[in-house]
Amino acid sequence: MTSNSPDELLDRVRTYVADHAGELHADLDAWLRIPSISAAPEHATDVTRSAEWLSHRLVALGFPVVETWATSLHPSVFAEWPCGGPDAPTVLLYGHHDVQPVDPLESWETPPFEPTVVGDELRARGAIDDKGQVLFHLLGLAAHLAVTGRDAPRVNLKVLVEGEEEIGSVNFPTLLKERKDRLSCDVVVVSDTSMHSRDVPSMCVGMRGLVYAQVDLHGPDIDLHSGSFGGAVPNPATVLARIFGTLHDDQGHVTLDGFYDRVVPLSDRERELIERLPFDESEWLSAVAKSRAAVGESGFTTYERLWARPTAEVHGMSAGYTGAGQKTIVPTDASGKVSFRLVFDQRPAEVEVAFRTHVLRHTPDGIEATIQFFGDGVKACLTPLDHPALQAATRAMGRAFGSEVLYTREGGSGPEADLAEILEAPVIFLGVGLPDDRIHAPNERVIVPLLETGAVAAALLWDELAESGVSA
Amino acid sequence: MTSNSPDELLDRVRTYVADHAGELHADLDAWLRIPSISAAPEHATDVTRSAEWLSHRLVALGFPVVETWATSLHPSVFAEWPCGGPDAPTVLLYGHHDVQPVDPLESWETPPFEPTVVGDELRARGAIDDKGQVLFHLLGLAAHLAVTGRDAPRVNLKVLVEGEEEIGSVNFPTLLKERKDRLSCDVVVVSDTSMHSRDVPSMCVGMRGLVYAQVDLHGPDIDLHSGSFGGAVPNPATVLARIFGTLHDDQGHVTLDGFYDRVVPLSDRERELIERLPFDESEWLSAVAKSRAAVGESGFTTYERLWARPTAEVHGMSAGYTGAGQKTIVPTDASGKVSFRLVFDQRPAEVEVAFRTHVLRHTPDGIEATIQFFGDGVKACLTPLDHPALQAATRAMGRAFGSEVLYTREGGSGPEADLAEILEAPVIFLGVGLPDDRIHAPNERVIVPLLETGAVAAALLWDELAESGVSA
Repeated sequence: MTSNSPDELLDRVRTYVADHAGELHADLDAWLRIPSISAAPEHATDVTRSAEWLSHRLVALGFPVVETWATSLHPSVFAEWPCGGPDAPTVLLYGHHDVQPVDPLESWETPPFEPTVVGDELRARGAIDDKGQVLFHLLGLAAHLAVTGRDAPRVNLKVLVEGEEEIGSVNFPTLLKERKDRLSCDVVVVSDTSMHSRDVPSMCVGMRGLVYAQVDLHGPDIDLHSGSFGGAVPNPATVLARIFGTLHDDQGHVTLDGFYDRVVPLSDRERELIERLPFDESEWLSAVAKSRAAVGESGFTTYERLWARPTAEVHGMSAGYTGAGQKTIVPTDASGKVSFRLVFDQRPAEVEVAFRTHVLRHTPDGIEATIQFFGDGVKACLTPLDHPALQAATRAMGRAFGSEVLYTREGGSGPEADLAEILEAPVIFLGVGLPDDRIHAPNERVIVPLLETGAVAAALLWDELAESGVSA
Repeated sequence: MTSNSPDELLDRVRTYVADHAGELHADLDAWLRIPSISAAPEHATDVTRSAEWLSHRLVALGFPVVETWATSLHPSVFAEWPCGGPDAPTVLLYGHHDVQPVDPLESWETPPFEPTVVGDELRARGAIDDKGQVLFHLLGLAAHLAVTGRDAPRVNLKVLVEGEEEIGSVNFPTLLKERKDRLSCDVVVVSDTSMHSRDVPSMCVGMRGLVYAQVDLHGPDIDLHSGSFGGAVPNPATVLARIFGTLHDDQGHVTLDGFYDRVVPLSDRERELIERLPFDESEWLSAVAKSRAAVGESGFTTYERLWARPTAEVHGMSAGYTGAGQKTIVPTDASGKVSFRLVFDQRPAEVEVAFRTHVLRHTPDGIEATIQFFGDGVKACLTPLDHPALQAATRAMGRAFGSEVLYTREGGSGPEADLAEILEAPVIFLGVGLPDDRIHAPNERVIVPLLETGAVAAALLWDELAESGVSA
């Protein structure tokens, strides 16, 4: 073991990462060629191949324990590397190796599973979501071992990389519960998030949760002439509009009973830190959101609406006649999809009950309403700004990027809340994606230099965590 | 000319109609084989053939003037047969020779354009809507001439049978205005309506009007991830739901500004007459409406809701993702169709303005709303119960059916309001359809004995009108 000043250590990590960047690039090229699309049954074997590739890579890196954990669908990869010393914290590193579908394929400028370098970007499905983010940790761990001269990480390191994140982590809560003993840890490090921007390194401290529902309404058994029957029989299309159209009040607040009861409001410090993040609304609209206006709940900024406020969004509706011209019917059926993004400390099960109540309140006699929830819902997660593990990760990232680290949240939803809740551990997010990395869209990319800086941060993280006072 | 007591005349008409029913059946068989679907461009020549068939038939019946009036789409047939005597009223008989589309074809038990007798029904597209109703008048006119021994009808008879009724009579108002001199009349007789039921002969005294609109909403230029953007950009699907979901208040009243300002309420006598019509709600629901409940505006019965109250009905909606499972997007677009049924004395143009105001009121910044109205709207029409022409037609129908005639209205919309308004003449409705004739639906039928009784009523009508005091 070598003794280092922090600055010396940082320099040596940087050098190591620069010298070994080719290994990261080779890993990216190999792993990203495996089309591990978890949503597509025809790619099931590719998801398994992806897990195998990662397992071999972890073994090669030196993990003494590497296991493939089957679920009823796609396998997760688990690895473990004990520290060997006393009092070191146990850290679980989380990522996922499955990727989103690639349609519309014709919109890709380069084939999605042929990683292609364009300037300092690497383009491929999964480049940033999430294979690139898993891989920078592997290089970071190698750097950590090399510069510290250790033969094991300075923390008890566990790795869990699942294969079903892009399909809602359907089996993940079950896996966590069944393997809770193996996965026990003092802190979870998630690498599946973005920074504010290339020039403003930041860490995510929370993600919104999700409740997703489909409503199917059945009215008359045949399409009725709306002249002969309109006004005297219930119309499922009108009812669906009423159910979805009354989800918000005039100020944009969601109207479900008790929806905000458990919402933890932003503290003054959290609002202040969010306000320090640069935000150019017109650029955000034109370059990112492709929308003509930033509108939402009264009394909140765009970032606050996205990160700290729960929402109701209609994703799709279909009812009656939608062809050209006019057809005067009371249609038989109407169907729609809606989701609620949740913030800490809302409970998915309670939101489901409130939505069911809302639907039934607006459903008149003569309409049969079927409400279907997809999955069990996802709870939001939120890490307190003063948590020592978050502070440790902030220092690691700040040193790697050479600048102050601010805090963001993610509006999206992931399995992070399950990790926090089931494993009873705080979750911190070390991710180097950017908001315009086109995740879930054609031409997904990663900025390669950011991955390399991520590897530096990852290399520093284990020392910082070991010295943070976080322990079992 | 033969002199007759009213009873003798009735007997002779009945005998004539019975003896010549075969001609009616032959006419039905020939005309209904022509698939004059006005909505289908590929059937345009069939609509023309239908007009030609009718023209030949009217010439054969003895009309001295028969003309085909072209429009920019489908032709109308006009015929004229002057009375020859002084002081006789001029009557315009209106019907239409185009028919509805036949989809879903697989639901037809017999081919829609092969007229098929099933018991006392004749099944074919157009059997009752409206070819059968035009044809009973031809037999009735032949009976009128035969039993009175006249060589011309006892009124100055004009006939106008249009070819675009099923596509909203798009060119009809223009036609009426351009040909107003040729069409001038003291009363319009429309045969395109139903009776209350087989056992309860009735006459329609009004029809609802119509304003039909399509709303297209455009939000973000690409489908956005609803986690990353939801709550901070406008969602066109949510906005469409809000536009349509706020068309009614909790009591089922339509919320458009000033919507009810011109509505003429039912008189006590009108309500009383409507209450005398038999109505078995559970039978109506199960046999006619195929709905599980009769619901609508508070404070009104089902018939009042259908006939005397204006409505808002959503006919179709499409937005975003409607496939299986969950997709978490803020969709780019949403589109929907809605119509308003109007009652006397609402003005379509005012309702269009009110709806446009409603849409814009609920459309936030960032959503581009396009509102398209189909046609100019149709005004409701209503004939006063004490009008002498209505009383004359009531007597003719009462004698033909041998029972009291009650009054109904139609919830649907037609060109009748244009006839009344442009020609400045009252409209009376002599129709023998039934509510369960499946108009606009598969397996449309006509009850053949009702057509024959209709011919008797039509034969008596011209004498009754001549003696009613209606004249120019």
